[in-house]
Amino acid sequence: MPSHTAPRPASGAESTPIGYFTAANSADVVIARMEGCPDDRLKTIMSALVRHLHAAIKEVELTTEEWAAAIDFLTRTGQICSDWRQEFILLSDVLGASMLVDAINHDKGGGTTESTVLGPFHVENAPRRALGDSICLDGIGEPVLVRGRVTDEAGRPIPHALLDVWQANGDGFYDVQQQGLQPEMNLRGLFEADDEGRFWFRSIVPQYYAIPHDGPVGRLLIALGRHPYRPAHIHFIVAADGYEPVTTHIFMPGDPYLESDAVFGVKESLIATLRDLDEPAAAGAGEAPKRVVEWDFRLMRRRAAPAEPLS
Amino acid sequence: MPSHTAPRPASGAESTPIGYFTAANSADVVIARMEGCPDDRLKTIMSALVRHLHAAIKEVELTTEEWAAAIDFLTRTGQICSDWRQEFILLSDVLGASMLVDAINHDKGGGTTESTVLGPFHVENAPRRALGDSICLDGIGEPVLVRGRVTDEAGRPIPHALLDVWQANGDGFYDVQQQGLQPEMNLRGLFEADDEGRFWFRSIVPQYYAIPHDGPVGRLLIALGRHPYRPAHIHFIVAADGYEPVTTHIFMPGDPYLESDAVFGVKESLIATLRDLDEPAAAGAGEAPKRVVEWDFRLMRRRAAPAEPLS
Repeated sequence: MPSHTAPRPASGAESTPIGYFTAANSADVVIARMEGCPDDRLKTIMSALVRHLHAAIKEVELTTEEWAAAIDFLTRTGQICSDWRQEFILLSDVLGASMLVDAINHDKGGGTTESTVLGPFHVENAPRRALGDSICLDGIGEPVLVRGRVTDEAGRPIPHALLDVWQANGDGFYDVQQQGLQPEMNLRGLFEADDEGRFWFRSIVPQYYAIPHDGPVGRLLIALGRHPYRPAHIHFIVAADGYEPVTTHIFMPGDPYLESDAVFGVKESLIATLRDLDEPAAAGAGEAPKRVVEWDFRLMRRRAAPAEPLS
Repeated sequence: MPSHTAPRPASGAESTPIGYFTAANSADVVIARMEGCPDDRLKTIMSALVRHLHAAIKEVELTTEEWAAAIDFLTRTGQICSDWRQEFILLSDVLGASMLVDAINHDKGGGTTESTVLGPFHVENAPRRALGDSICLDGIGEPVLVRGRVTDEAGRPIPHALLDVWQANGDGFYDVQQQGLQPEMNLRGLFEADDEGRFWFRSIVPQYYAIPHDGPVGRLLIALGRHPYRPAHIHFIVAADGYEPVTTHIFMPGDPYLESDAVFGVKESLIATLRDLDEPAAAGAGEAPKRVVEWDFRLMRRRAAPAEPLS
């Protein structure tokens, strides 16, 4: 006798039978099973997912062996994930899903700074640094000054805006990819803009680099005849009270991969200028930068929360 | 300086630029990147997947938080997988993807035995057993005799066909789900039909049971308002030289979950009969079964391999 005591299906459960599962009715059968879902949004999302998943499988007439290869791929993708590696974000990135979600959710226009992918290498609680400090702790790479202003849509300064900055080192790796090899929190920092929304700090000129390609996603890219390179960039999350935060990059001009970023993150409006510095560099220890990246961030006022429905 | 030496993109790579990624052109941009894929089939599959994935994301206007929840779900699904647990097969099963792949690949008609899902609990190298043996090693459950014949499409016996059999125990669990609690290889066996294609063995009457619902997939089912139950069944893979092997179940009649199998595996043609045995049971140790399941398998002749293309 079974020790579990499953409830019999409610009498209404089969009141509108649509028959057993067939190739023809497959998505309808699965979606009908969600009729009792108490979460309308989950039901909408899962219904769309099931309809498109089934359509894709039918369209390509997926074989049993290909299905098994897909199961194996997804399993390996999950299993290589760790506290320091997020292979499913990488998969979403290389399939353009991350940028599509970004585009849908940040279609703001109006001249404010455009967003792009977060990427898998952001770390919470980067160290606070003073304006003018260098985020480069290993001294490798060409020094650069990064400076600009944080303003509102009309160009008025936003005092004390916070800038969370991170980038890869001169060898094309983030600190979390090379623990023990790079100093902890290398090329990361949290800066607070001054009274007039100005910020400045020192770093190194970023280089193009390969996304991790020793895992399932990298091998997929190679099998697809795609390269794993991202054009040189510096990551920012810029936030200020009363404004929508923006997660974005600034890209270096002239990079050979600007038009074929492996994760589709490039937007024309995010390509910065990089020029020789013809004035004394900002104060601070270490080699004085001879080049400068200048960049202003424009934030959008926070949207009012939707009014509570009358009830 | 970067230590990697990435090749510059080939000069033709940007010869047909379709512009930077936008919500409107997203799938086209990603698919265009696979132009150089040397594997036509992989390109076809991944193109369809990208087109449908992007369409689904746009259709529901997936939010950043929902995207993050999906990444987290997929990661946890991969990480709970082990040698003894395949949560991605379970996910494929509950979304109807496994049955759809089955339906596409086994649309044979012609009165041969229909296939259904393999499920996540098949084990290679089940022990060989003699006709008449019991596969139930823990003595729990109602004894039953299972017998029938393996024939071709015309009903002619197929001598020495092989039957790989497995099922859940009286508590609704497979041996691999209860290591240390159930005897190893409990309720599994490999039988060879006799000269006339006949097989018979002893087991227990299977009970409906819940698929594993302590992991991400089970929690998704509950959130969707779906139950996790599968109607009572015995798994078979039946194979013989010169015939297409069939992976299938036989279902017990009258089960309350026949019309709402959590994995959509039921086909009307696979519901067996279960009746009282009014003759002496087959020889063998242990309690003599008082009931019998009778079932014949009809295999389809193996299709000829497709001719090599002239070249």
